[in-house]
Amino acid sequence: MNTPKGFRFSAVNAGVKSPEVRRDDMGLIFCEELAVLSGVFTRNRVKAAPVVIGQEIAGRGKARAVLANAGNANACTGDQGIHDARFLMKTAARELGVSSDEVVPLSTGVIGIRLPVDRMASRIPALVSALGDDPEVFARAIMTTDTFPKVVSRTVGNAAVLGIAKGAGMIAPDMATTLAVVLTDAVISKQDLDNIIRKSIEYTFNAITIDGDMSTNDALLALSSCQVTESIVEIEKGIAEVIRDLALLLVRDGEGATKLVTITVKGAADEQDAKKAAMSVANSLLVKTALFGADPNWGRILAAVGYSGIAFMPEQVFIDISGYRVVERGMESDGFNENKLHALLKEREIVIEIRIGDGPGAFTAYTTDLSYDYVKINSEYRT
Amino acid sequence: MNTPKGFRFSAVNAGVKSPEVRRDDMGLIFCEELAVLSGVFTRNRVKAAPVVIGQEIAGRGKARAVLANAGNANACTGDQGIHDARFLMKTAARELGVSSDEVVPLSTGVIGIRLPVDRMASRIPALVSALGDDPEVFARAIMTTDTFPKVVSRTVGNAAVLGIAKGAGMIAPDMATTLAVVLTDAVISKQDLDNIIRKSIEYTFNAITIDGDMSTNDALLALSSCQVTESIVEIEKGIAEVIRDLALLLVRDGEGATKLVTITVKGAADEQDAKKAAMSVANSLLVKTALFGADPNWGRILAAVGYSGIAFMPEQVFIDISGYRVVERGMESDGFNENKLHALLKEREIVIEIRIGDGPGAFTAYTTDLSYDYVKINSEYRT
Repeated sequence: MNTPKGFRFSAVNAGVKSPEVRRDDMGLIFCEELAVLSGVFTRNRVKAAPVVIGQEIAGRGKARAVLANAGNANACTGDQGIHDARFLMKTAARELGVSSDEVVPLSTGVIGIRLPVDRMASRIPALVSALGDDPEVFARAIMTTDTFPKVVSRTVGNAAVLGIAKGAGMIAPDMATTLAVVLTDAVISKQDLDNIIRKSIEYTFNAITIDGDMSTNDALLALSSCQVTESIVEIEKGIAEVIRDLALLLVRDGEGATKLVTITVKGAADEQDAKKAAMSVANSLLVKTALFGADPNWGRILAAVGYSGIAFMPEQVFIDISGYRVVERGMESDGFNENKLHALLKEREIVIEIRIGDGPGAFTAYTTDLSYDYVKINSEYRT
Repeated sequence: MNTPKGFRFSAVNAGVKSPEVRRDDMGLIFCEELAVLSGVFTRNRVKAAPVVIGQEIAGRGKARAVLANAGNANACTGDQGIHDARFLMKTAARELGVSSDEVVPLSTGVIGIRLPVDRMASRIPALVSALGDDPEVFARAIMTTDTFPKVVSRTVGNAAVLGIAKGAGMIAPDMATTLAVVLTDAVISKQDLDNIIRKSIEYTFNAITIDGDMSTNDALLALSSCQVTESIVEIEKGIAEVIRDLALLLVRDGEGATKLVTITVKGAADEQDAKKAAMSVANSLLVKTALFGADPNWGRILAAVGYSGIAFMPEQVFIDISGYRVVERGMESDGFNENKLHALLKEREIVIEIRIGDGPGAFTAYTTDLSYDYVKINSEYRT
């Protein structure tokens, strides 16, 4: 793990959900110098308090710290939620000796309940004292239904890029993702960082879907400590790779998921059409339940392309599943063997390739199957 | 059950899925005189053979019979599928002594497999001999994962309206539904029947969703034997009521559903916005799994309105669940009691009312919860 220079990490238990829950649920990232900040946030009209505040700070483009919690989203909490977030930012800023509007808040968890600010504030001195070199403590503190912490890194010449994220449900396209932080020590301007982040998420966080639901709290923050000079092209590549790796980790840890499914649509009129078709398949409950059951029911894939809203000729469609030709010209392929497809669908990784015509448009989406455990995880009382 | 004059019904076992399956899976409706015909069909680009043929016949507006089967959708079967459907139409027409292009085909079941036409054709004489007065035999023959047959009727003065439909998954808005037939004996023109059907489905079949998937085979046929003179206004009302009752039966019998959920959005800028918001909530997996678990997690409802793509102010939102005020001005209502909401969510019928502003737009959608059984039903081998 190559950690970018200038960042330190810590986590404590603050009993955010309730004093009885003993896991670390508040995390801190501290930047030794003022960092360049970029951010991408949920497009949900219902925005949690930390999103509203985070957008403000990201607009100014400078930060010294990220203060995060799991267990409570501080969403649908009105003005009180804004006050609560600011109170915690102020408490952390005082302990860290920085300005309050350089502390970016991030929250994830249940919606509509006020943060236990007194309990949380009382743990901030311990959080600051605990600052150290291990990013995984922060990654663990922002976990909700995640089954493992998500940290990836890349070395880019003398610089480093590190990514931390949480999953694992309520992940939909057309926005960042749940919570993610990307750190680098490469010298970079605010504008370059903004551009790189926007471009990188298009084929990564914006190409994954687990349940099609869009959260009130999604935020991707990128911070640079600007301590090392490196080629901006290489840094862009490193950041894109780190974000793609995080996106795939999110899908792998999708709630109740037993399979990682890659869906590529080719031959569309343009990339937008290819994305619509790929996302239609990726979000189809009938496709996802069939994948869970290894049901060789390829018609559901073709049907989902059919209702995606794009124009195409069904008789030009070819579908390969994990390298096996299943559909030729819109029909079952010659010599199609149901048992062979059933066996391929039992694998943990499934690759679906759909060619819908001769156009130049292509897009790859990532998704999961839909299992009993998805229902279990999301039907439990106040998850 | 008031059956419109001039129609007879029958069903036989034709082993459509396999010779071992012994239930009735082929059904016939015969009109003693040439009937006026109207039809609404799936908007999926991938259209099953019977949809392609049915659209043609509905365009001409006349029919003598409806020939339906469950167990095989005759979809993604190319030219062969069209030939197979026409062969069965011809066989039935010969036995009935009518013209082949007055027999409307309907199929539902697995996609991508050729119909067993010889087995089916051999049963058509028996199907014709069995014609009688009970519409339920036809309703049973088109069942797939339905747990009960769906037949409703209305008396309108001297006339009658009868509706038959099948559910129970793959039901999405913006099209008719799976298979449905509406029969009346009231004198009516093709144009009036077309208009009435199009208007009626807008707030019924187009307002229900179970899994958001759109089928390749959806078709609603309306036939009138034109034997009784009745007020067209009253007939329109009767047809609309029959279609609404069918729609609610479909939702009640949604795959794995344990709850019938009515979602009304009011105060939107217009009806289109209200529908978008209501459908966003109705299709949210997080809302549906929470309803299954009676989880009082109201934030998921507000979040789903938030990502529906319409403009509104979260601080103007009020949400009532089964008459209990849960959200006031975008926040948890004063004195909100989690246990009280939990108890209300345990009921089999749940009414969600969402006021998002002061606009005139309103829409009601109908949906189900998402249960373990939904996953079970849809993950089984070649369902």
